Amino acid sequence: MIETSNKGRFTLPAETGIDDDVKRLIDKWGADAIRNSDGTVLSKELMDMAVKVYTTYLTVRNDQEWAYSHKNQLQMQYLMSKYNTATTELLEINPLEGYFNRQFEIDKNHDFKRYWEVIDRSTGDVLEDSNWYFDCSKETVVITNAKRWHRYTVSFLAYQVWDTTQMYNHLTNNWTTPPQMPYDAIHEETREHIFSYLENWLKENPSVDVVRFTTFFYHFTIAYNDKAKEKFVDWFGYSASVSPEALDEFEKVKGYKLRAEVFVDEGYYNTPFRVPSKEFLDWIDFIQGFVAENAKKCVELCHRHGKEAMMFLGDNWIGTEPYGDYFGNIGVDSVVGSVGSGATLRMISDIPHVKYTEGRFLPYFFPDTFCEGGNPTKEAVENWIQARRAILRKPVDRMGYGGYLSLALKFPDFVDKVEEITNEFREIHNRIKGTKAYTGKFKVAVLNAWGRLRSWQCNMVAHALLYKKTYSYVGVIECLSGMPVDVVFMSFEDIKKNGIPEDIGVIINAGDAGTAWSGHSYWIDDEVTCKIREWVYNGGGFIGVGEPTAYQHQGRYFQLSDVLGVDREMGYTLSYTRHDKVYHGEHFILEDQQSEINFGEGMKYVYAVQESTKILSMDKGDINLAVNEFGNGRSVYISGLPYTPENVRILLRAIYFAASREEEMFNWYTSNCNTECAAYLEVGNVAVINNSDKEQETELYKDKNNIEKLTLKPYEIKWISK
Amino acid sequence: MIETSNKGRFTLPAETGIDDDVKRLIDKWGADAIRNSDGTVLSKELMDMAVKVYTTYLTVRNDQEWAYSHKNQLQMQYLMSKYNTATTELLEINPLEGYFNRQFEIDKNHDFKRYWEVIDRSTGDVLEDSNWYFDCSKETVVITNAKRWHRYTVSFLAYQVWDTTQMYNHLTNNWTTPPQMPYDAIHEETREHIFSYLENWLKENPSVDVVRFTTFFYHFTIAYNDKAKEKFVDWFGYSASVSPEALDEFEKVKGYKLRAEVFVDEGYYNTPFRVPSKEFLDWIDFIQGFVAENAKKCVELCHRHGKEAMMFLGDNWIGTEPYGDYFGNIGVDSVVGSVGSGATLRMISDIPHVKYTEGRFLPYFFPDTFCEGGNPTKEAVENWIQARRAILRKPVDRMGYGGYLSLALKFPDFVDKVEEITNEFREIHNRIKGTKAYTGKFKVAVLNAWGRLRSWQCNMVAHALLYKKTYSYVGVIECLSGMPVDVVFMSFEDIKKNGIPEDIGVIINAGDAGTAWSGHSYWIDDEVTCKIREWVYNGGGFIGVGEPTAYQHQGRYFQLSDVLGVDREMGYTLSYTRHDKVYHGEHFILEDQQSEINFGEGMKYVYAVQESTKILSMDKGDINLAVNEFGNGRSVYISGLPYTPENVRILLRAIYFAASREEEMFNWYTSNCNTECAAYLEVGNVAVINNSDKEQETELYKDKNNIEKLTLKPYEIKWISK
Repeated sequence: MIETSNKGRFTLPAETGIDDDVKRLIDKWGADAIRNSDGTVLSKELMDMAVKVYTTYLTVRNDQEWAYSHKNQLQMQYLMSKYNTATTELLEINPLEGYFNRQFEIDKNHDFKRYWEVIDRSTGDVLEDSNWYFDCSKETVVITNAKRWHRYTVSFLAYQVWDTTQMYNHLTNNWTTPPQMPYDAIHEETREHIFSYLENWLKENPSVDVVRFTTFFYHFTIAYNDKAKEKFVDWFGYSASVSPEALDEFEKVKGYKLRAEVFVDEGYYNTPFRVPSKEFLDWIDFIQGFVAENAKKCVELCHRHGKEAMMFLGDNWIGTEPYGDYFGNIGVDSVVGSVGSGATLRMISDIPHVKYTEGRFLPYFFPDTFCEGGNPTKEAVENWIQARRAILRKPVDRMGYGGYLSLALKFPDFVDKVEEITNEFREIHNRIKGTKAYTGKFKVAVLNAWGRLRSWQCNMVAHALLYKKTYSYVGVIECLSGMPVDVVFMSFEDIKKNGIPEDIGVIINAGDAGTAWSGHSYWIDDEVTCKIREWVYNGGGFIGVGEPTAYQHQGRYFQLSDVLGVDREMGYTLSYTRHDKVYHGEHFILEDQQSEINFGEGMKYVYAVQESTKILSMDKGDINLAVNEFGNGRSVYISGLPYTPENVRILLRAIYFAASREEEMFNWYTSNCNTECAAYLEVGNVAVINNSDKEQETELYKDKNNIEKLTLKPYEIKWISK
Repeated sequence: MIETSNKGRFTLPAETGIDDDVKRLIDKWGADAIRNSDGTVLSKELMDMAVKVYTTYLTVRNDQEWAYSHKNQLQMQYLMSKYNTATTELLEINPLEGYFNRQFEIDKNHDFKRYWEVIDRSTGDVLEDSNWYFDCSKETVVITNAKRWHRYTVSFLAYQVWDTTQMYNHLTNNWTTPPQMPYDAIHEETREHIFSYLENWLKENPSVDVVRFTTFFYHFTIAYNDKAKEKFVDWFGYSASVSPEALDEFEKVKGYKLRAEVFVDEGYYNTPFRVPSKEFLDWIDFIQGFVAENAKKCVELCHRHGKEAMMFLGDNWIGTEPYGDYFGNIGVDSVVGSVGSGATLRMISDIPHVKYTEGRFLPYFFPDTFCEGGNPTKEAVENWIQARRAILRKPVDRMGYGGYLSLALKFPDFVDKVEEITNEFREIHNRIKGTKAYTGKFKVAVLNAWGRLRSWQCNMVAHALLYKKTYSYVGVIECLSGMPVDVVFMSFEDIKKNGIPEDIGVIINAGDAGTAWSGHSYWIDDEVTCKIREWVYNGGGFIGVGEPTAYQHQGRYFQLSDVLGVDREMGYTLSYTRHDKVYHGEHFILEDQQSEINFGEGMKYVYAVQESTKILSMDKGDINLAVNEFGNGRSVYISGLPYTPENVRILLRAIYFAASREEEMFNWYTSNCNTECAAYLEVGNVAVINNSDKEQETELYKDKNNIEKLTLKPYEIKWISK
């Protein structure tokens, strides 16, 4: 890779017909690679330039002739009908009602009774086969002896007759090309065709240096509604990885049969907010094995033709699971993904087993931003600044943008700003020389039902989009993504299997009750609670955000209320008189706090359950911030923690307080919370960044006795030799 | 009773030493009765005046000699120790830790192993007898083989060595009389003594006309903490009605034994927010039977001595249950209770089986209000105005105030205001002549786990106090208390047993998930949901407030989401794209709405589940008000409804909309929602009231075609002949 300071590590999205501009930008932005997007084709001249060429490869839909001639080998989804209330004993259900009929076609090729389920949702009972039938001509399920006033659903398989991403682009950007259909590699015939088609393509595209797989075999779950609008989108969803053939194969491999309900999951479709069932985890494992095995063959084909294989972390990424056990087997050279935040940057940059990672930064050069009144420069700066603090912790190796260059060209200040950003990005790499910034002496473990598999993806609905229900938790991960602490993601099963590793200093549990992020019924699992109690009692630190350890059981809602010192009022303890008072003394966690803390959505009705609880912040009687001692350990409760510079500081202090290592926080620390530092001690370089749009004065602490005053310009990164 | 307009229906609290003032106020306020409070004694002169004399009688503590000489017959409470985390296998628990040692003494007279329980709260398991013992000298429970890091509690019996009310008065008002102790009528010896002592007292107090029992045998639950402050107060609590003797008797009568846990209830002590267990309902039934049987004897003694028996609805009222099946047997002549709101007024005035009811209005003549800077006049007016609309629906027969007259005398404007209020009160009675105001043609049923037994007491923690967690539900009852609708209180068991009565037009379900008010697991009871669905489908109206029908089950949180058209996001359906939009057309429910609706605490994350749902109000994506159709029926969802004049109107309109009888609403209706009317058609009188402190113009509708314009002065009540 080029290591000069004004060239390299940058991938340009190409566009046909403006070759001179492309060449100018290659130079200005220091691009050493160009790529075509889904839909654009590079000119011969550009592809022959002395930069690497990436080309998108759509593994399961590049050959639409195959798709149209093998419609029985298209991909499927397990879908659930809407809820139907029986007003008579005869209940007719149109399974596809409410779905987009250009996306789905009911599977009539397989045994309905074997793969479908009709469920009485009032009781959860599955109907006996004899109590329903599918009317193929009307495409309705008829229940012959429904219980009146019960509600019924049908779980069924449907072919995906329109590829999800292409459909999205069609409907969003008014494309008019014919609908593409995704074929399913589970069928041996199709699988072999995928390989031979790829091999052929590799031969026919000698000027391509990097095959950018978008991605391998299974798209994340998207279902549209009957108005051709999004109905259900789960970036983590495995619904489109299922088929009778895969189900049969699963049964062979794992030794048991999966019900439709394992996938349909009461209509929740195993969103990552659900504590994953053993069956669903087995399915993920099974699909991972299948994807890894066959993706590996694709990668080997690329290598055999002298090309790199790059994987796009999106679209058909299901089953690749970069943080799973099989990903290393695939052997891709690199991963590229979209950077919407610090957390999504770390989600990419922390991926193991690859030679390099690449971030696609925002904004996309699309007409929504690059229009009259749009301010793409501002968006680019904000995106860069939020990502930069994470980059300093663990950089992506390369960066790039996506969209239509011609749109970007209309905004010359944007073009200049990208030049600045790319230079700053390259400078980081040049300064840190592959070394890691200083972090504290202990690790911080984020505890939930997913653990490592969903590293940096906690409480995420759709990839970096803001949801009212989740931003106060996503903030925790976002804060952590740029903090001088080593973060690990730990599951309850990890704790049950291995206990809490020696190097963990603080455990964070953040999420709403009932979700996988908080932990749901894991909190009435003896082994989990005992191990954590013992660990805290012996000096560990526990930070709970929102509804940590929550599960209504035996008189408590927060099961670790003894550790946390707080619980949440669920209506049963209103008869207890509250004597909660805010502690008005000084406290380590609040030392830098100059204004009201932003707890985001917060959490109403949290109260102290012990006298030892010290309340640091309370609003209308509800605790927002409290600390407690438990044996030699400490806990911190926070009602919500959206990402803000101030909250990064609150969390940093909470971590060092919980770990009982307050003094250590001052090793490579900045006094002003709008600034942060990253110390690369091996190479003697320290970066101090200003995350704000205003000039900031700050003190850089090497430790409590070595302090240096600095002034930083808005958004500046300042490099100091140490 | 005196029916002239300026005398009668009023009870004056007496005070010694200011007889001339008392006489003046008897005249000014038109009192026809005076009473002494707990602690005051009437002078002979006053008792001989030509007004009735009420005297407080404390059934279980009037004879403290008896109490001190029968300490083994004192009342008890079942208490639960705090939660104790086992850090070693030997765990020593001080059961009384955190309790007030002047209130409680551990019962050492009965078999610990029979009546106590030591519970592993990590698992819910009750410890075997062999695994713990009570160390009588140290007063600690020792668990000999605790599971490390589990949490344990001890449920135990303690004598109440300080009467609850007296203790409260001591600690609140710095009384210095010796502590009184309550004896327990469950002991035959004590019971007989209670009767004979009462008989004696009746003989010795010939000038008393009305024995005001405060009250009979068992106090509601109050436990103080080790700082002599309130720890737990449940106005509905039965914890102080328990004793080994009562438990043994229960076993004989009901045929099964009750565990300590039935009372301790995970530390929730059966607050009415808990769905009552069968065992607890059996206990209530058992105690009611006992209280009714023996209270009846007290009443009969009074009658035999030519005196009335009046019951105070408070203090030792437990087991009387005015809305229960046994109350009529007691035979009290009247009930008096404190009026904190319209709902508490109706709670008193709707009590059946008595000759008359009396309301004690606010403020109490206590130094907290009657002091420099206090504004007792304002408090009196606000209390009166909030109660007045309920009085117009169902009046208490008498009114009165409590406290120290001498304090009131210092506020002459207050003395004048009370004169106005009492005259207005008497005028209401004189005008309506015992007839009932017009109500709509259908009844409104408030549905919860308690039904009739907790009439007008839904979502109440402590008697009319405002709780952040509940005021948005209490508002529903408060609105209803003065509305022109007939209200019934219905339990889920009522529905299961009897279905939904013909005359019900609308069912209201209002409360937080998990509480008795919402219904908790009743909502996965087939019989309940099917009967309600069928009823709505056939034309019924269903109004849900907060978390109606909520119980996470089979893909839904609101189990009647098909009826309501909405559900609540619990984190599992974030992947569903929301297309919720507010309906901007006109709607019957909103026709009078001129400003933002006040939904109180509201309910975050409520969304539409059906296209038929019409969203009338939404805030940041969360639905606050929506309507839906279900067959021939309709539903209304409201996120919260604190009491305000505007919300009375919202609820009135919601009721008539849900019942599909919009036109009928205009029979005896006022256009301005700060005004209300009550039409006494039998006597040809209509009251129009102004609930606001400003002049109001309004239109009085006899029906949609007969409209009259009126102007009302602040707080005015205007009588119109029709």
